[in-house]
Amino acid sequence: MSAARKRLLLGAFLMNTPSHILGGGWRHPDAQQLRYNELSLWTDLAKRLEEAAFDTLFLADVVGVYGDHDGGWASHVRRGLQVPSNDPLVLASALAAVTDKLGLAFTSSVVQAHPFQFARQLSTLDHLTNGRVGWNIVTSVLENAHRNFGATSLVAHDDRYEWAEEYVDVAYRLWEGSWDRDAVLADKAGDFADPAKVNKIGFEGHTYKVDGPHLVTPSPQGTPYLFQAGSSDRGRRFAAKHAEATFLFAPHPEYVAKQVASLRALEAEAGRTRGSVKVFAGLHVLVGSTEAEVSRKLDEFEEYLDLDAIVAHIGGGIGVDLGGLPLDATLADVETEGARGVLEALFAAVPNGNPTIADVARYRARGQLVAGTPESVADELERWQDAGTDGINLINFRLPGTYIDFIEGALPELRRRGLAQSSYGEGATLRERLGDTVGDGQIAADHPAARHRGAFSHLSAAATNLQKQGHRA
Amino acid sequence: MSAARKRLLLGAFLMNTPSHILGGGWRHPDAQQLRYNELSLWTDLAKRLEEAAFDTLFLADVVGVYGDHDGGWASHVRRGLQVPSNDPLVLASALAAVTDKLGLAFTSSVVQAHPFQFARQLSTLDHLTNGRVGWNIVTSVLENAHRNFGATSLVAHDDRYEWAEEYVDVAYRLWEGSWDRDAVLADKAGDFADPAKVNKIGFEGHTYKVDGPHLVTPSPQGTPYLFQAGSSDRGRRFAAKHAEATFLFAPHPEYVAKQVASLRALEAEAGRTRGSVKVFAGLHVLVGSTEAEVSRKLDEFEEYLDLDAIVAHIGGGIGVDLGGLPLDATLADVETEGARGVLEALFAAVPNGNPTIADVARYRARGQLVAGTPESVADELERWQDAGTDGINLINFRLPGTYIDFIEGALPELRRRGLAQSSYGEGATLRERLGDTVGDGQIAADHPAARHRGAFSHLSAAATNLQKQGHRA
Repeated sequence: MSAARKRLLLGAFLMNTPSHILGGGWRHPDAQQLRYNELSLWTDLAKRLEEAAFDTLFLADVVGVYGDHDGGWASHVRRGLQVPSNDPLVLASALAAVTDKLGLAFTSSVVQAHPFQFARQLSTLDHLTNGRVGWNIVTSVLENAHRNFGATSLVAHDDRYEWAEEYVDVAYRLWEGSWDRDAVLADKAGDFADPAKVNKIGFEGHTYKVDGPHLVTPSPQGTPYLFQAGSSDRGRRFAAKHAEATFLFAPHPEYVAKQVASLRALEAEAGRTRGSVKVFAGLHVLVGSTEAEVSRKLDEFEEYLDLDAIVAHIGGGIGVDLGGLPLDATLADVETEGARGVLEALFAAVPNGNPTIADVARYRARGQLVAGTPESVADELERWQDAGTDGINLINFRLPGTYIDFIEGALPELRRRGLAQSSYGEGATLRERLGDTVGDGQIAADHPAARHRGAFSHLSAAATNLQKQGHRA
Repeated sequence: MSAARKRLLLGAFLMNTPSHILGGGWRHPDAQQLRYNELSLWTDLAKRLEEAAFDTLFLADVVGVYGDHDGGWASHVRRGLQVPSNDPLVLASALAAVTDKLGLAFTSSVVQAHPFQFARQLSTLDHLTNGRVGWNIVTSVLENAHRNFGATSLVAHDDRYEWAEEYVDVAYRLWEGSWDRDAVLADKAGDFADPAKVNKIGFEGHTYKVDGPHLVTPSPQGTPYLFQAGSSDRGRRFAAKHAEATFLFAPHPEYVAKQVASLRALEAEAGRTRGSVKVFAGLHVLVGSTEAEVSRKLDEFEEYLDLDAIVAHIGGGIGVDLGGLPLDATLADVETEGARGVLEALFAAVPNGNPTIADVARYRARGQLVAGTPESVADELERWQDAGTDGINLINFRLPGTYIDFIEGALPELRRRGLAQSSYGEGATLRERLGDTVGDGQIAADHPAARHRGAFSHLSAAATNLQKQGHRA
């Protein structure tokens, strides 16, 4: 035990839906997930997280129903498995008004919003929150998501990442290059802004054509804090290039260590400083004040955990229907056409010999579980930290109970060890708080967004006017 | 004076920008428009409006810079003329958390958000606000707006309305037809929802292809309360068919009377009950406790009003560059190519003989002005009401001063006459409150949205599953 430990960054991993990750949790007598449409569920929780000095409230998202389970999507509806899925931007914006320090991060896919619109919305929210916005960049793996936005099928994996490259490129230009940071004068006796410092971006790419200027002045962070959670090779290269924090589900700390090593190498390839990308692990912490209480809570967890929902989540996410099979089916019983590699890895990860589907689901749900007394939870989190984990994104089984238990049960011990902060640092923005620094809140100079600063002054309002008047004369 | 008067509906017409309509107002010493990026400007105002029992806080929007003035867009930037233009959905969502009764309405154009995304965001917000959301449907008249979203030029006027017809059609299907209102069971001992009552929409139109299901359960209002402000023939037909309230700028009550008569005829053509569409007039109320105070405030108004900004707003909106001309130029001096009709109407509306551009701007700014003591303001508003005005949307010159003055100065007298409410009615939703009724909050049965109720049950999750399993067997 060491008081000199660096703290773990701390996020609450949420979704505005009845059932996020740990299927069946909503059926627990204390669970309030069914109130997901009610603002007070979220404002009360956000205020509680802020009192506890959490770094972020992180809202996951999907924009379609999961792939088939047992021949269709009926079972997803019965279980509320990420359907409904309410809009996280709207919820994060509402939470802006009841919080002051808490970071508000959320997922948004390139399929769902045009980058001009999206960049504008994030800049607006970054202003309203004084620089507390984070964006988790995703490309949507669900076919239905693509079919909700005009496609006839799922866009191919690598094409989605090319699309995402262009998407963030547009957004970076708007965030970093359209308005010079000293463009606004706000002079009641003079001008609102200097037209020589407000620039169109004149972007013409493969998918997008965007004139500009950005409709929002530079916000406290400029580019919002960037999360990305790619797990494929292409996805991890994207994360190494663009993310300021990456987020993964790891079955054990050794897995994190392996991922971190690979990430550091990819960072170098992308020309970024080693350690630029912080690593968050998604964990479900179950804490009890005694071993007996832990044991009772574990029994409850097992009682309410819906293994078939976990299976539906896994299969629906990778596009392989694992429903309609008995829970004791093994890999040999599954139709693996087109997804053999993914499925083999899934089953092979389970330590016991010839695992069943139920074992895979249990391993998934249990792998994210850190259960124990405050001391043993802290010991375990130290192991995750030693493996290279910078932060944890806390998954919930019960809302708000999982977080209340963590705050009351685990946080005091984590603070004693230096693993958690008791109050927010001095940095004004989310970026500074997550870096435990005080700076200007801007994205690092070696990040690809930064190269657009000052790049468009030839397209300023003043330059454009002169040009037009020239043509006219 | 009659205590039996029906009340006027009351909205605050705002925009998250330095300079909305009455150009130059932001330069007034008391004006706080320059704080437009700060959340507290808006939360304080929203709470104040709610205390005063305003019906709505209405956020206007543009998604591009106005058309050229004096050869470009530099003067718009200097004046903050609707640039920057922050996102109203984000602001309305933030205001949801600090209000309980106030309606939150905002403009969103068909160009800026895909209808699947937009419908989801509005449903989410309608849940979080317990049914207080209004949408002002627009098609974007600004060329730059279209160029920000991939177009190479402004989409033609009537094509924009066809686009809007398809857009609302998609949204209506999602709001009214995708989830049956009794689909959600929320049964901890059973299912979250009944898959036989959750339906895809399978939409394939000219512009959009949307699979569904809607990702949000039916919200308190289902379809949010619909505003529309079309002023062209095509626009007014669209309003008569789709709007529950329309919004116009009228230079005098007689203009309202003419518009209302025409609207009632169009309502009948669209198959809707006479009087379905409420009429809001945009007015700038300037109230003083004495004639001397009114006179002093009028002098200030004249002092800070920026006539050239009004000209830029008019010309930039219709796509005719009226800049670079002296303020005493007349119609004969203006290059009217391609916009003769609009320009002739603009100048012809001004009562004096051969008006100058300054006269046009002054007439525009003055036509929206109701100035006087509380008694004379109330008398004047009675004239607007007698002409068929159902509500007023209050334009501001100073934020929040214009509204504080109105609340403190004008409201007591309006309440004495029955022209304004002192507290909110019993209806739970914005739709009920604006109708002064208590009902189910749903859109009227003769509105085109209503015909999609129950229309997609053949595409329910349960039906789709059976079909797929059939194919499989």
